[in-house]
Amino acid sequence: MRINQLISSVADAGREILFNKNQKPVTQSLHDLCADLCSNKGEALGTALAREVVVAYNNANKQQKIDFFFHLLTSYSANPSEVLKAAEAYKSNADYASFKALNDIVEAPRQNLFRRINMAPGGIKTIVQLRQDLLAAIKEHPELKVIDFDLKHLLNSWFNRGFLSLEEIDWKTPAHILEKLIKYEAVHAMNGWDDLKKRLGTNRRCFGFFHPSLPDEPLIFVEVALVKGIADKVQPLIDPDESIDEIDVDTAIFYSISNCQAGLQGISFGNFLIKQVVMELKKEQPSLSQYATLSPIPGFGKWLKRELDNTDSSILTPQQRDSLKALSKDNWHADETTTDALKIQLMPLCAHYLYKAKRRSRPLDPVANFHLGNGAYIQRINWLGDTSDNGIKQSMGMLVNYRYEIDKVEKNHECFVNEGKITVSNDFKKMLP
Amino acid sequence: MRINQLISSVADAGREILFNKNQKPVTQSLHDLCADLCSNKGEALGTALAREVVVAYNNANKQQKIDFFFHLLTSYSANPSEVLKAAEAYKSNADYASFKALNDIVEAPRQNLFRRINMAPGGIKTIVQLRQDLLAAIKEHPELKVIDFDLKHLLNSWFNRGFLSLEEIDWKTPAHILEKLIKYEAVHAMNGWDDLKKRLGTNRRCFGFFHPSLPDEPLIFVEVALVKGIADKVQPLIDPDESIDEIDVDTAIFYSISNCQAGLQGISFGNFLIKQVVMELKKEQPSLSQYATLSPIPGFGKWLKRELDNTDSSILTPQQRDSLKALSKDNWHADETTTDALKIQLMPLCAHYLYKAKRRSRPLDPVANFHLGNGAYIQRINWLGDTSDNGIKQSMGMLVNYRYEIDKVEKNHECFVNEGKITVSNDFKKMLP
Amino acid sequence: MRINQLISSVADAGREILFNKNQKPVTQSLHDLCADLCSNKGEALGTALAREVVVAYNNANKQQKIDFFFHLLTSYSANPSEVLKAAEAYKSNADYASFKALNDIVEAPRQNLFRRINMAPGGIKTIVQLRQDLLAAIKEHPELKVIDFDLKHLLNSWFNRGFLSLEEIDWKTPAHILEKLIKYEAVHAMNGWDDLKKRLGTNRRCFGFFHPSLPDEPLIFVEVALVKGIADKVQPLIDPDESIDEIDVDTAIFYSISNCQAGLQGISFGNFLIKQVVMELKKEQPSLSQYATLSPIPGFGKWLKRELDNTDSSILTPQQRDSLKALSKDNWHADETTTDALKIQLMPLCAHYLYKAKRRSRPLDPVANFHLGNGAYIQRINWLGDTSDNGIKQSMGMLVNYRYEIDKVEKNHECFVNEGKITVSNDFKKMLP
Amino acid sequence: MRINQLISSVADAGREILFNKNQKPVTQSLHDLCADLCSNKGEALGTALAREVVVAYNNANKQQKIDFFFHLLTSYSANPSEVLKAAEAYKSNADYASFKALNDIVEAPRQNLFRRINMAPGGIKTIVQLRQDLLAAIKEHPELKVIDFDLKHLLNSWFNRGFLSLEEIDWKTPAHILEKLIKYEAVHAMNGWDDLKKRLGTNRRCFGFFHPSLPDEPLIFVEVALVKGIADKVQPLIDPDESIDEIDVDTAIFYSISNCQAGLQGISFGNFLIKQVVMELKKEQPSLSQYATLSPIPGFGKWLKRELDNTDSSILTPQQRDSLKALSKDNWHADETTTDALKIQLMPLCAHYLYKAKRRSRPLDPVANFHLGNGAYIQRINWLGDTSDNGIKQSMGMLVNYRYEIDKVEKNHECFVNEGKITVSNDFKKMLP
Repeated sequence: MRINQLISSVADAGREILFNKNQKPVTQSLHDLCADLCSNKGEALGTALAREVVVAYNNANKQQKIDFFFHLLTSYSANPSEVLKAAEAYKSNADYASFKALNDIVEAPRQNLFRRINMAPGGIKTIVQLRQDLLAAIKEHPELKVIDFDLKHLLNSWFNRGFLSLEEIDWKTPAHILEKLIKYEAVHAMNGWDDLKKRLGTNRRCFGFFHPSLPDEPLIFVEVALVKGIADKVQPLIDPDESIDEIDVDTAIFYSISNCQAGLQGISFGNFLIKQVVMELKKEQPSLSQYATLSPIPGFGKWLKRELDNTDSSILTPQQRDSLKALSKDNWHADETTTDALKIQLMPLCAHYLYKAKRRSRPLDPVANFHLGNGAYIQRINWLGDTSDNGIKQSMGMLVNYRYEIDKVEKNHECFVNEGKITVSNDFKKMLP
Repeated sequence: MRINQLISSVADAGREILFNKNQKPVTQSLHDLCADLCSNKGEALGTALAREVVVAYNNANKQQKIDFFFHLLTSYSANPSEVLKAAEAYKSNADYASFKALNDIVEAPRQNLFRRINMAPGGIKTIVQLRQDLLAAIKEHPELKVIDFDLKHLLNSWFNRGFLSLEEIDWKTPAHILEKLIKYEAVHAMNGWDDLKKRLGTNRRCFGFFHPSLPDEPLIFVEVALVKGIADKVQPLIDPDESIDEIDVDTAIFYSISNCQAGLQGISFGNFLIKQVVMELKKEQPSLSQYATLSPIPGFGKWLKRELDNTDSSILTPQQRDSLKALSKDNWHADETTTDALKIQLMPLCAHYLYKAKRRSRPLDPVANFHLGNGAYIQRINWLGDTSDNGIKQSMGMLVNYRYEIDKVEKNHECFVNEGKITVSNDFKKMLP
Repeated sequence: MRINQLISSVADAGREILFNKNQKPVTQSLHDLCADLCSNKGEALGTALAREVVVAYNNANKQQKIDFFFHLLTSYSANPSEVLKAAEAYKSNADYASFKALNDIVEAPRQNLFRRINMAPGGIKTIVQLRQDLLAAIKEHPELKVIDFDLKHLLNSWFNRGFLSLEEIDWKTPAHILEKLIKYEAVHAMNGWDDLKKRLGTNRRCFGFFHPSLPDEPLIFVEVALVKGIADKVQPLIDPDESIDEIDVDTAIFYSISNCQAGLQGISFGNFLIKQVVMELKKEQPSLSQYATLSPIPGFGKWLKRELDNTDSSILTPQQRDSLKALSKDNWHADETTTDALKIQLMPLCAHYLYKAKRRSRPLDPVANFHLGNGAYIQRINWLGDTSDNGIKQSMGMLVNYRYEIDKVEKNHECFVNEGKITVSNDFKKMLP
Repeated sequence: MRINQLISSVADAGREILFNKNQKPVTQSLHDLCADLCSNKGEALGTALAREVVVAYNNANKQQKIDFFFHLLTSYSANPSEVLKAAEAYKSNADYASFKALNDIVEAPRQNLFRRINMAPGGIKTIVQLRQDLLAAIKEHPELKVIDFDLKHLLNSWFNRGFLSLEEIDWKTPAHILEKLIKYEAVHAMNGWDDLKKRLGTNRRCFGFFHPSLPDEPLIFVEVALVKGIADKVQPLIDPDESIDEIDVDTAIFYSISNCQAGLQGISFGNFLIKQVVMELKKEQPSLSQYATLSPIPGFGKWLKRELDNTDSSILTPQQRDSLKALSKDNWHADETTTDALKIQLMPLCAHYLYKAKRRSRPLDPVANFHLGNGAYIQRINWLGDTSDNGIKQSMGMLVNYRYEIDKVEKNHECFVNEGKITVSNDFKKMLP
């Protein structure tokens, strides 16, 4: 649907939605408050009105929020005719006045509304929540996506790296922040505080980015194990049987990276995070000389299933198809004979997946895409590196080491972005068919 | 000059400026670094490149900075033809794609450059400095004003009230911040640390806004005296003869407000500041019941001179003209007979100036305009309230109390903004001719 | 055994203990290091030597520590003959020199040793640990008690209330401190972090004393519930079924006080703690008007058993003896008929115990002794106030409210200490036989 | 006068002093409050009573304080007869009871009073002030010295190195602490904040010890200049003409050490301070390899005058006496011919003074005594190292470098303390006659 059509159609037909009996007060008061907030009144009352908008939004239910999003569409969008007029004036005059007029008219008025909401105490938290709600709503109402354009634009600006602080998180960190690690850990789930304490113990590190206006909320965090040699299994890192000696560590393994805020989806912190943590660790522990991830391959299982289902697939040999039947056995990974046989088949397939499976000339696997785009290269695939239920299911237990060599990061990144070339180790190369 | 003309003219003729021998390396490397920073390379290297841009900019001399601003104009502006095409597409399609394309094309690429510079440590400080330099350059090169539009837009967003923290400044504040109060005090100058200590002593308060990424720099600060009754003279507030008793204070007098960052000119913090300080003081000292400023009238002297010079002025009676000759006497303010005579003439003239002298239907006096727009009203003019050299020169020693009554602020503000109406006390009204 | 005998006996016979083969190095090096530390060398090397003593002590095993304690007895005691000579000189001269000499000679040299150990980083922690070890050793070696006299004297001085800070502990407190609450809670055990979070939730408070040189170690902490009316049951306070509303609370209930450091046994913080917390709460929440404990009666069960076992006891009537047989039934407290019958008998017995059972004219019950000595009075006994296994066993499930009325605290305390008089409420008085 | 005599004489005759009309209320209430504080009442009321004692003491005038000190003597001293009895019992019984009784009876009850005063907020500050007052009073009333014994004993224990924190002081330190540096600087006076800022600028450092209960009061501080080579003049260090480059510094010069609290006189922090600052600097700036002072010779001028006045002095040759007459010329130090001649005579005399002039086998010069006792050695005398008025007057402008070589500190110290031997450099040795 086109936006100007939408505007009028919602303005007419949508009245029912917007003004139904039960929710009228909330929705209406939210609309009125927003109008006030964007008027002179908003200036005079300072943050007081913004605070009321925040309260009103947080009290709204799901439907009322959707109504509000449509209101943002109909009442806070740029007018296409005016935009065109301003563009024409800019082209013919190209002076300050026409430049200013164009910019003023093109920016949707809701950006100003969002900026004013942000003035309230807790305003930024509400904006982040609002985007989370909006992303959910967009699934059913794709026409709301233009609102997300404005929100994402603002959030990208507000969560600029320059405003973030990198903070080490350890067992001395306040509990209300630590409990969020348990909640947000997205790669290797933690079962409560005992698990958490192990991940913050000897030779373990955790770092996160924080925004000064959201001091209680990590935006993203990475868990690191300091070890000897590049680790090939994750279980000993997260659940050490015995107390870990402070051995002569030489390697930092990034074994888990988790984004925390659904409302900040698509706003990239990860690439800054890893590189800055490398710098921090280098300073703290000069003995470290290697930096690598121990990463999941979240897309491999699905990809393999697709290939298996596709009887025309040229990737799988009949022999491979036959061998892979063993995967349907319960607990196949606990039986050595089975795993030996599978390893021979699966490792090259996984290498193929990481290296060749692409979409729009970028790696299909999102984790591969992230680290390679970040300037890392593929060092090694580790057989049965993650034998948790999830690890087995997702990627037949395999994990990958992406290696960060700081002085090669720029070159790797440029090759990857400009030529679509994936840098890999020699050992990895040999595994490719 | 129109921007597209400018672009080509600078691109041709400007080469001389940009590439003269001596400064070539700095300017060129700054251009190259900025190009890199906006490319993929910038993503890969994270904040390292941004840091180099910051260093290069800070090392540039005045001319090199001006060259750089022209470079921002020629190489980082939106293309008018593309803008027009996008505006047409948006009008006819009005879908997400055309909306996004329009917004992407209208925003000058330098906004993205500024955001990337901000990623560096100290990036925001450089941006603020850059705007200060730019504002100076605009005086000679008004065509650069479009760059300021983008900068101001970004800074308005980044220095949103929601990101600022109000902090009390007292004698326990770190010295490197306190010395900035001495430096930035713009109303009643301080002669060093002894003066400062008095202004932070018993029954004195100071509050400022800070941005988390500029922790050492107050953005604006206000000095407050807690007194009994509404103060009518500033000298006893800033230079108390004897130690001030902690008397039963009932009134907070805001006697000085100073903006600190030239690079944040036009980004308004003052209205938030006063109202929030009122809240803080109320909480801290429930005995306070009155809040008022003791403000200078910076424009009165100049206005009066203009009227005196203008022999056709209908505002001044011949008798007034005659009386005011006394102002040319040295030290007139120290002679009681003189001051008594002058008071009778000057007080109504000042009231007239504050109430009637306008430009575009707003008060001519900037301080009046600020507080009235903020929702305060004029309570009183104080004869010889400031007998410092500057006070005598600027406004014949008069000061004004603008009164803040929190529950009237909204109404006052709306009258002022919508109807151009100035609210005043009854006593003040009587003084008007 | 007398100390001078001991000195020689240990000096002779004890050699075997002190110098047996295996542990010689540790013990000997500890002795030598201590000798160095007390010499000029200690002055020159500053804290370095103290640090070595700390390390050596912490590496010693149980036996080596006991040897060290005997060494402190034999080599770091005041010489009785010299003491007598100094006392005689002081009596006859009574001047500064004799005063100084007396004081210098009477103070056991180990006090100086302890003060020097304290100079090391972590020194005070070692001293507290050392006293904990010593208290354990005294059980088998009562002659070591004189060392404890010196240690306790020093610790009393070092842990003076003036050096402690009261800190609120909540869910934002660092995890490594919070985990100590779980560990040290001595009244109503916590099963991990979920329990802890409830005790720090809405309308719950926790305060502890900290010493600046032991910032990670609470010395004592009190848990408080803000409720409406004086609480009579502890389970709803520590395990709320549903989320607790922020009701109009008027009462603070101190339901758990725990000392944390075994090495600080006998050094009293509790009386300061409660009164200061009352002040803090009053400031924070002016609606609070009542302050009371909900306390266990740890000695009642044992006392009752003794009386039951003592067939000559005049306290128990035959009828009571008969009724109390019901206590041997499993889960008697879950059966209403049983509890109704028992309540009639047990409540007056408990009142008798609290009010009349004494040792050296002080209440037999340690908790009663603490709060009454603190200036509180007995308000009420609560039937089945604590139905946990421990509560049933210790005091047949009863709990007591000791009431703190700040302006009566001094009078209550003086009556209690000077006249041995226990202040109680009228309702309590009626229960007494 | 003997103490027991004193007790009765004051008790009789002193009534007039203690109870004269005007001051009776203050003195009496202070006495009563102290009695209460040491009684059970003190326990019940916690810190409230202590606070009243603090207020009462701080309100007392000089005479009232002296009365109070005599009260501490008469009413809070150990009874000699009881002491003797306890000493006898300890000798014959030597058990825990007699040990405890002896210790309890020997310790003057005022120690307990001081400990209880310390419980008040600001208590320790009052105790330190009280000792300052006492030290002043002792000059006229030497019999009060026994009180100082107790106070010093307690303060030595409370200001144990283990409780102090070393803190770097720089331009970011709160102003109320910085102003104390100006006030307390005892070696090279500062004329206000500009001087101070220079001393905290590039390649300048300042460190102080703080006690957690006196967070606003440095106890002692040292000023350090990081330079190339061992500095021989102080003026360029404290008043740099131009901005100081961050050159490749290799030497830390301790050019000023000041004790801050008169009430902590005789409680030694300096030796810990220098050594710990050496450690800190080493960590911060690994390029540093030399640590030395640039110290005044405060006693040289006086000593020289004594020798000149003493016509029998064997130290001065007639030729020297003659040459030294030049010292009476105004501004002699500005005339090169004069200074050249004087240098030849004065340098060896100064070396003699530092090396040979002793009292009780310790160096006469207090600064020499301090650093040599600390384990430093004499490196060099610097001619006209301090040309300030004070420097010229005190020591004819000479300054000394005492050198700290960490691995020689222990040996130097032991030689000095045990054998009275002063370690010096070879160059210095050659200067000795």
